[in-house]
Amino acid sequence: MALANTRYYFDWAATALPGRFASAQVYANPSSQHLEGRKAKDALEQARQTCAKVLGVKAETLYFTSGGTESNGIVLSSLIIKNLMKKNKGRVLYSAVEHPSVRENCTGLVRFGFPLSSVAVEKDGRINPHALGPLIQKNPDTRFAAIMAVNNETGAIMDMKSISAMIRGTEHAPIHLHCDLVQALGKIPVDIMGWDLDSASISAHKLGGPAGTGLLYLKKPVEVLFKGGQEKGMRPGTENTGGAAAMASIMEKLASPDTVIIESTKAKERWRYLIKSLKTIKRCSLIPEDREETDGRFSPWILQLRFSGIPGEVMQRALDNQGFAVSTGSACSSTVQDRPVLAAMGLDEAARLEGIRVSQGWTTTMDDINALVTGIEKVLKFL
Amino acid sequence: MALANTRYYFDWAATALPGRFASAQVYANPSSQHLEGRKAKDALEQARQTCAKVLGVKAETLYFTSGGTESNGIVLSSLIIKNLMKKNKGRVLYSAVEHPSVRENCTGLVRFGFPLSSVAVEKDGRINPHALGPLIQKNPDTRFAAIMAVNNETGAIMDMKSISAMIRGTEHAPIHLHCDLVQALGKIPVDIMGWDLDSASISAHKLGGPAGTGLLYLKKPVEVLFKGGQEKGMRPGTENTGGAAAMASIMEKLASPDTVIIESTKAKERWRYLIKSLKTIKRCSLIPEDREETDGRFSPWILQLRFSGIPGEVMQRALDNQGFAVSTGSACSSTVQDRPVLAAMGLDEAARLEGIRVSQGWTTTMDDINALVTGIEKVLKFL
Repeated sequence: MALANTRYYFDWAATALPGRFASAQVYANPSSQHLEGRKAKDALEQARQTCAKVLGVKAETLYFTSGGTESNGIVLSSLIIKNLMKKNKGRVLYSAVEHPSVRENCTGLVRFGFPLSSVAVEKDGRINPHALGPLIQKNPDTRFAAIMAVNNETGAIMDMKSISAMIRGTEHAPIHLHCDLVQALGKIPVDIMGWDLDSASISAHKLGGPAGTGLLYLKKPVEVLFKGGQEKGMRPGTENTGGAAAMASIMEKLASPDTVIIESTKAKERWRYLIKSLKTIKRCSLIPEDREETDGRFSPWILQLRFSGIPGEVMQRALDNQGFAVSTGSACSSTVQDRPVLAAMGLDEAARLEGIRVSQGWTTTMDDINALVTGIEKVLKFL
Repeated sequence: MALANTRYYFDWAATALPGRFASAQVYANPSSQHLEGRKAKDALEQARQTCAKVLGVKAETLYFTSGGTESNGIVLSSLIIKNLMKKNKGRVLYSAVEHPSVRENCTGLVRFGFPLSSVAVEKDGRINPHALGPLIQKNPDTRFAAIMAVNNETGAIMDMKSISAMIRGTEHAPIHLHCDLVQALGKIPVDIMGWDLDSASISAHKLGGPAGTGLLYLKKPVEVLFKGGQEKGMRPGTENTGGAAAMASIMEKLASPDTVIIESTKAKERWRYLIKSLKTIKRCSLIPEDREETDGRFSPWILQLRFSGIPGEVMQRALDNQGFAVSTGSACSSTVQDRPVLAAMGLDEAARLEGIRVSQGWTTTMDDINALVTGIEKVLKFL
């Protein structure tokens, strides 16, 4: 959708443009006992029920948080609490292409004495489920695995069903399977129960809901660093009832299984056209290069590409000046941009530096795609 | 202010009724490099500047969080990270009347091997600054102290200037002084620099701003459990720009030093009238009993009281049925309500169980106070 002054937003993977959602007309603290508090509590529980229905899970397995990062953090910090005093802490597996809030925080577990293993990805940025078995066989101390459903930079879709089956089939002792669903929910079919996840993270703002609102799915409660009376002890702090209600509203609107199929079909059509157009541009390569116009390995909402000889930052700036908002790496990394996701896919440094990400949303139109292609062609004449 | 159906809200200490604040017309992720991202970043930094001006601190010492509880949690978890591998971890002092998000999480540090000392309070629920010196002399390993500015159950105001001076005067090695300002900001004059605090926590919803938004003041950055690129590494996760802007707006409106003096003077006048009226009710006692109609030891926004022979829960429910929202203990505790704040003040179990809290806000009127007194008198005829 073209914005005011003909701005085109193609960075939905960073955050979605605000969607329309019902705002809650509640106030008071849901933990208060009076009428106002009970009404707030009712609104909060209604929101939880709505989210549970959309996700196909029991309401009591969902906990409202301040976002996907905090949801990931609660699960990772629970490992510290549970295992700190144990000599054998249990190995932590994480895919090499996890979002920084998982990857950087898994590597941070070294400070606490956890053994770690990074799960390599194929050239297409996806995990080969069959490679997981030998990895776990080789590391029988594995007790935790963090595997994202959709990569935030490339849109690579992980085969969570096979990955989960492989983990369940080879585990020597129960392995906690955590899945970051932030880029998956509302974009591709998500099946928490079918994938047999132990925990999962969701963000509201990626769906156009409010920032500062997220969900954590926990099959069973975990040990938490800091307790509180709220959210059954899993997440302390006064509940953000308005945020929860808004999240439930936008999830109901965009993340219900039927809607996901309808909207992702439209997204595929737009992406098919974009990719087809880009393939006619000589200096343009997709990442990975063999990504097809319609390719089930990738989310039709995210595209990583590069332009020969043009650093990604330069291309991003040039497109920005033409009115197009696209991005380079994840906005969330704490370290200098070395594009670890692209490195894990085997791209050399020169190629990595050229990568840019284009991501679309629910209000993106075919006209927007056309404008983007025209904009890229225009920019390329000057670079 | 009477609500619809003649409801009277007297639980502002749990959460304030929503105030009017400017909502931010920003979207995009502040960590994104494009025009939209830069505009969001500008809005976020403008909000930070506004908050800094209200608080009289440098903008670079403020970090937006998801609320007071998280602000407290970042500081407490930094102790774990910093000291985990050290043999001498440094003693943690905390006042016996801290909010659960501090008190319960300080006691939780035992799991990590930290020595703890609780700072006793006088019968009025306040810390005697002169008692702090001997406590620190006796425990030269003290490296951290958490002292709240205003107690959330009794309104007891701590003499932070003297407390800080006493700590600074007796410290054998630097002691980190953390202050929970959640019930203080906007209610009494707050002086972060004058009190020489190392860190402080603030919540937006207690001022009528949005839930899920808070601030952390840090004189110097601390080591954090989970890093991220946002908030200079102190608080990971996509920034809640709208929440930050709303918080800045409501802080500017209600927490500026001049406004605090004007509004707290009005609050004192209403509280003076309430306390005077309550003192004529035979079965009513204030907590502490010697609280005066106008009493500089207590916040004029919070009042703890009890009715002889009536459990607090019963009184709360009876008043609720009459249209008055009041509370018993903190809504935030994770443990069974034993009223630890009242216990620390020396109240016996029978008296503790009778305690209820009445708290007012900016739109509370003298008519509301009159209605509450009438309501209490009516309820007492039946109990």
